[in-house]
Amino acid sequence: MTAFEDRLRRAAARTEAALDAALPPVGEDGVGRLAAAMRHAALGGGKRLRGFLAIEAAALFDADPAGADRVAASVECLHAYSLVHDDLPCMDDDALRRGKPTVHVAWDEATAVLAGDALQTLAFELLVDPATHPDAAVRAELALALARASGVAGMVGGQVLDIAAETAGAPLDADAIAALQHLKTGALIGFAAEAGAILGRAAPEDRARLAGFARDLGAAFQIRDDLLDVEGDAEAAGKRLGKDAAAGKATFVSTLGVEGARARAAALADRAASALAPYGSRADALAAAAAYAVTRRA
Amino acid sequence: MTAFEDRLRRAAARTEAALDAALPPVGEDGVGRLAAAMRHAALGGGKRLRGFLAIEAAALFDADPAGADRVAASVECLHAYSLVHDDLPCMDDDALRRGKPTVHVAWDEATAVLAGDALQTLAFELLVDPATHPDAAVRAELALALARASGVAGMVGGQVLDIAAETAGAPLDADAIAALQHLKTGALIGFAAEAGAILGRAAPEDRARLAGFARDLGAAFQIRDDLLDVEGDAEAAGKRLGKDAAAGKATFVSTLGVEGARARAAALADRAASALAPYGSRADALAAAAAYAVTRRA
Repeated sequence: MTAFEDRLRRAAARTEAALDAALPPVGEDGVGRLAAAMRHAALGGGKRLRGFLAIEAAALFDADPAGADRVAASVECLHAYSLVHDDLPCMDDDALRRGKPTVHVAWDEATAVLAGDALQTLAFELLVDPATHPDAAVRAELALALARASGVAGMVGGQVLDIAAETAGAPLDADAIAALQHLKTGALIGFAAEAGAILGRAAPEDRARLAGFARDLGAAFQIRDDLLDVEGDAEAAGKRLGKDAAAGKATFVSTLGVEGARARAAALADRAASALAPYGSRADALAAAAAYAVTRRA
Repeated sequence: MTAFEDRLRRAAARTEAALDAALPPVGEDGVGRLAAAMRHAALGGGKRLRGFLAIEAAALFDADPAGADRVAASVECLHAYSLVHDDLPCMDDDALRRGKPTVHVAWDEATAVLAGDALQTLAFELLVDPATHPDAAVRAELALALARASGVAGMVGGQVLDIAAETAGAPLDADAIAALQHLKTGALIGFAAEAGAILGRAAPEDRARLAGFARDLGAAFQIRDDLLDVEGDAEAAGKRLGKDAAAGKATFVSTLGVEGARARAAALADRAASALAPYGSRADALAAAAAYAVTRRA
C-alpha cells in the first residue's frame, strides 16, 4: 500500500465512522427496517473519494476534523442516495453495487425509493446541524453549495442528460460526454472539496480552486472507470463490468479509443495537480489523489 | 367565499408565485423536460395548506413577507416531492393527483423519481439561500427543522409505517393511526407553521406552540379527508375516492365510525384553535383554518 492509499484508507475509515454515527439505528419495526436499507446503501463500500476530498480540503484550510468528518458523511449520503435511485429498475436496473445486492433487490423498490429519499434528507441535516460548525453562516453556505451541486443544475441534471442520451439517435461526442459528466459526477465531487474549503473559511478564490481541482480529478477518475470497464476484472470492481459497451453507451473509450481516453485522463490529472501548486507540499495528499485517479487498478 | 377562504386563496396565490419563480424553466432539452415534470407536480393544485400556515405564522411574528413566500414554496416543494414518490407504481400506484395525471403517468417512472429528488433538493436550497433571510442562523435553523420533519424521524418514517401497516395481519387501531399520521403528514404541517415562527425569530415556546397547533390542525384535516373519502365526490376532490376502503386500509372512519371520526376531528380542531389563545385576534386567520379543516366540502 502506498502512502497515498494509506491516507485514502484512513479518510474512508473516518467517513465510515461518521456515517455510522449519523445513520438511524436498525430495528425490527418499519423505521428500523428502512434504517437497515439506508445503512446497506451508505456503509461498507466504495473508495470514499468524496469523503477523502472533504476531509483533506478541510485539513488544508485548518478546519476542525470533527466537522470535516460530518461533511464527508454528508456528501457520501448524497452520493449513496443517487446510487440507490440510479440502480432502480426504471433507471439503470442494476442488481449489484459495491459487491452487494442493490437496495431494491435486497429489499424492494418502495424501500429503495424511501431509503434514497431519507439519505438525501440526512445529507442536508448533517450540514446544518450545529455540531458541524459553530458558525451558522458556514452551515448555511455548505447546504446551499450542496443543493446547487446536486439539483437540476448539477447531479440530477446530469442524470437527466444521461437518460436522454440513451434514447437519442446518435452517440454523444467527447464534448457532450464531458458536459454530461461535469454535471452528473463532477458537480458533487467539486462540492466535496469545496465543502472542506468552506468549513475552513477559505477565500472565494480558494473555494473555486478546490472545486475546479476536484472536478478535473473526478473527470479523470471517471475516464479511468471507463477504461477499467473494458479492461478490469469484475471481482475487484465489485460491480458488473462491460455494461457500457453492452448498452451501446458512449464513453471516452468508445469515442476516443483506449489510448485517446488515457491521454485525456492524464491531461485532466495533470491540470488537477497543477491547480494545487499555490499550496505547496501542504496539498501533497490531494495532489497524489490526481495521480492515483489515473493509475488505480480498481 | 368566506373571509377565511379568501385569505387561504391569497396565500395560495403567493405560494404559487414563489414556486413559479423558484422552479427551473421548461425547455426542449432533458433538464427542461425535467423542469416541466417538476412544475406539473408542484404548481397549479392543492389548497396550499402548508404554504398558508407558513405565510400566516410568519405574519403573526412580523417576518418579512418575501421570505415567508420562499418558505411557503419550500414546504410545498417538499410536499410535492413526497406526493410524486408516493404515487409511484411501487408505492401507492396512483394515476390521478389534483385532477391531473401523476408524473409517472404523464412522463415515466424515471422522470418521476428524478423530479421528486430535485424537488426535495430545491426545498432545502430555497431555505438556505440568503434571499430567504439575511441572518444565516435563521436559514440554518429552517433547514434543520425541515430535515427533522421530513426524514426518517418524520415524514419518511410515517410513510414506512404506512407501508408496513398494509402488510400487517390486523388493521391499525386509532392510536396507531394517529401515531402514523403524526409522522406521515403531521411533522411537515407542524414544520410549515413553525417555519413561519422561525422566520419571525419567535421564542422557542412560540415555535413549539405553532408546531403543536399545526399538527392538531393537520390531524383534523386528515380525518376530514377520510370522511370525504367515503362521502365526498371525486370531481371536487380531484383524485380517486373510496380508495382507502377498497384497499382495506384502516382509517379513523373505519375504526371509530363516521360519528366517532367527526367527534375526534372536532376535538382536534378545538385544541388547535385554543393553542392560539395567547395571540388573541392577531391569530384569527390561523384559528379559522382549524374550523375550516373540519367543515370543508373538498
